[in-house]
Amino acid sequence: MGTKKAIVLVSGGMDSLVTAAIAVKKYTCAFLHVNYGQRTQTKELQSFHKIADYYHIKDRLVVSIDYLKKIGGSSLVDTKMKIEKADLKAKRIPNTYVPFRNTHIIAIAVSWAEVIHATRIFIGAVYEDSSGYPDCRPDYYKAYNALIKQGTKRGKIKIETPIIHMSKTQIVKKGKSLNAPFELSWSCYKSNRFACGVCESCLLRLRGFKNAHMIDPIEYEKGNIQIATASKGSAIV
Amino acid sequence: MGTKKAIVLVSGGMDSLVTAAIAVKKYTCAFLHVNYGQRTQTKELQSFHKIADYYHIKDRLVVSIDYLKKIGGSSLVDTKMKIEKADLKAKRIPNTYVPFRNTHIIAIAVSWAEVIHATRIFIGAVYEDSSGYPDCRPDYYKAYNALIKQGTKRGKIKIETPIIHMSKTQIVKKGKSLNAPFELSWSCYKSNRFACGVCESCLLRLRGFKNAHMIDPIEYEKGNIQIATASKGSAIV
Repeated sequence: MGTKKAIVLVSGGMDSLVTAAIAVKKYTCAFLHVNYGQRTQTKELQSFHKIADYYHIKDRLVVSIDYLKKIGGSSLVDTKMKIEKADLKAKRIPNTYVPFRNTHIIAIAVSWAEVIHATRIFIGAVYEDSSGYPDCRPDYYKAYNALIKQGTKRGKIKIETPIIHMSKTQIVKKGKSLNAPFELSWSCYKSNRFACGVCESCLLRLRGFKNAHMIDPIEYEKGNIQIATASKGSAIV
Repeated sequence: MGTKKAIVLVSGGMDSLVTAAIAVKKYTCAFLHVNYGQRTQTKELQSFHKIADYYHIKDRLVVSIDYLKKIGGSSLVDTKMKIEKADLKAKRIPNTYVPFRNTHIIAIAVSWAEVIHATRIFIGAVYEDSSGYPDCRPDYYKAYNALIKQGTKRGKIKIETPIIHMSKTQIVKKGKSLNAPFELSWSCYKSNRFACGVCESCLLRLRGFKNAHMIDPIEYEKGNIQIATASKGSAIV
């Protein structure tokens, strides 16, 4: 932990968990969680607080931007749309894409950073090994940093994306090396008791653990074809 | 009115009114109003609907981002801070600056534009003749357009700032030439029955009308030193 302040965007998923594990090594961190009307908001908020407790984070901000539900355009916020089954080889952007979502979330972090004098914003964006959302591109973050420079009082805040070029396997390995509490995170796009194991987010996570030769400590629904049940309902692909 | 769609950010103030008057000439417009926990939100929302009624706008979206109040850092949202009296010659950014506010507001417009297939976003930002907020700089909008290009599905949406280089006088004249209904707008930073006539926003507005040799049709509080009462309580500086 350093004396400089950073804000970490913690959705509660695996990528944000590992990003948090990286950030707390160097900075005094404040954690930000944003609900955007997604189906899984209760699950994710629980994970956020568990992860924040684990890292003894005092400065926490939970913000709701559920107006994104009103705007719609994504199966993650519009319950009339069906979440597409994963197709990791498809080149098109899946219907789980929430239009321009990360811009809203980072804007909240920047406003908060200006007030509490944080100079870094950590976000667990992943590009190559992801769903191809446009607001996860490295060039998007480059452009956002240019915007912050122009649009803030001092222009000194910078976004850090430490895992953007990592594969899910590398993220799992990085998390392991930092003792990140994977069991506290929630990645599934659904909000059932156990992770579904078939949505895009579950598949990406499970593939990461498989290729890292590790067992994902969270529990998955039984009977999914991707999953062979290990001890205590943990899963290996 | 054209066949192409645009979203106009209508706060209810004079600048957004004149921007709307410009936009409706060329585009089929949708109006967006954002409450951000500011003191004047009821007044501004009333003006928004009056202006939207005047232009027969069907597509209206009202969104609240009053989490900015929770974040604080500005006298416009934090009632414990006192709104600074205007000093138009001062070089520093006044405490009415809401950290990074316009980024949030435009992000909402961009998300909505992606869903309703609008290609332009109009905002009544003014730079030279303004309070010097960093998120009103022309370079800020240039940077935001670059961000939209990277962060959206099609990258085709552009922000238009038609009055950014105008003085308040030019804005008043432009509005007059387009028959903009000035009497429906609200610029004051306070939320009293009549505009205060002494806050930064009132002063800028009044100076604009004065230099355009026009009478501002809205009513001002009596007894302000800047104001000589005209007919029906209207004011000339």
